[in-house]
Amino acid sequence: MRFDVVTLFPRMVDAPLSESIVGRARERGQLELGFANPRDFTQDRHRTVDDRPYGGGPGMLMMAEPLFRAVKSVKKRGSLVVVLSPHGRRFDQKTARRLAARRHVVLVCGRYEGMDARFVAAAADEELSLGDFVLTGGEAAAVAVIDSVARLLPGVLKKEEAPVLESFTGPLLEAPQYTRPSRWRGKSVPSVLLGGNHAAIEAWRRKKAQALTKRKRPDLLRNTEA
Amino acid sequence: MRFDVVTLFPRMVDAPLSESIVGRARERGQLELGFANPRDFTQDRHRTVDDRPYGGGPGMLMMAEPLFRAVKSVKKRGSLVVVLSPHGRRFDQKTARRLAARRHVVLVCGRYEGMDARFVAAAADEELSLGDFVLTGGEAAAVAVIDSVARLLPGVLKKEEAPVLESFTGPLLEAPQYTRPSRWRGKSVPSVLLGGNHAAIEAWRRKKAQALTKRKRPDLLRNTEA
Repeated sequence: MRFDVVTLFPRMVDAPLSESIVGRARERGQLELGFANPRDFTQDRHRTVDDRPYGGGPGMLMMAEPLFRAVKSVKKRGSLVVVLSPHGRRFDQKTARRLAARRHVVLVCGRYEGMDARFVAAAADEELSLGDFVLTGGEAAAVAVIDSVARLLPGVLKKEEAPVLESFTGPLLEAPQYTRPSRWRGKSVPSVLLGGNHAAIEAWRRKKAQALTKRKRPDLLRNTEA
Repeated sequence: MRFDVVTLFPRMVDAPLSESIVGRARERGQLELGFANPRDFTQDRHRTVDDRPYGGGPGMLMMAEPLFRAVKSVKKRGSLVVVLSPHGRRFDQKTARRLAARRHVVLVCGRYEGMDARFVAAAADEELSLGDFVLTGGEAAAVAVIDSVARLLPGVLKKEEAPVLESFTGPLLEAPQYTRPSRWRGKSVPSVLLGGNHAAIEAWRRKKAQALTKRKRPDLLRNTEA
């Protein structure tokens, strides 16, 4: 699949997605990543992309037209245009799976105080938010979205990396995990994990996952009951 | 303040935080950013940082000792050690403000299937999660956390960038904003914003913010009532 990111700072998105698993996926062509910079779609000598808000108030807003033209330059038939904004629905694993099933997603990153609301109304299929916090821009959110979608694409994770059981695919957090050495700084690995009784291991993991979820994220259990 | 990030891929965190507002804050010394790579704290010839989970299952886990030594190398008296993990409490604006008040925060990024649970128990003051989705590692989460904290540090945002009203500082989402031109592709800016009646503008913004929050994030209103 392909992502195009509309951003004033392409390197903020390109660099972290050039290494490790996602970098490998791009080299292999499993994931394509392109950029469109609104500054390249301005029409004045100063290449202005922002201006003060009507009605007063602090900060600068991104102007509608450069954003609109940047989106238009990459949009194809069937593209999904997503604006990253604190107003959006919260991005989660279900949304990651939904995006992973698309052929082309355009992510639009705001900067400064936000964007002209007319651009969002005219160009966005949906708005997504990473969470209830404010970033200097959408770039960090774009990285997280692309990273989480990329690892779901066919062939991106090696078989031994491929998570059968992981948090948020089922209703529970994962049970605690341990690796060598079996004794580390005075702490031992739970003995059930060292034996070869797979049924006992499964039962232990299920119990631990339940207890962990109940303690740390009771809301996930409520969602399951609902 | 200072962040140290424990990660196998420092460039994934360093590069996106070298530009724009956060890059400027680092140049000015308002934010310091350091790294410790667990691979530099291994003791075998192959510099092994991961191994298979006890009890079987897919994926590789990060071993406790290289992580522990990497944290130890940067930790000072009064440091807050935060492990980024899907098990953690959800990062939000309130947490961003709490971290911004610290002198030194160590962020630990997992990779692969996770980390040995004994390391987390031994070294972490708390666990934070960016949201209910799975990343290839904690690096994208570290970028988002540092970005959102950095903009709250004294002097980082210019006065004209400094947000007096923004989403998640109060109980409401921000009202829609508009900038020039007043008419764009057939859409006009709401006329109240073009007049100079500040009381009317404030009332309009409050009403719009309420309506937007009610439509898109009714949970924020419920939290206020509680």
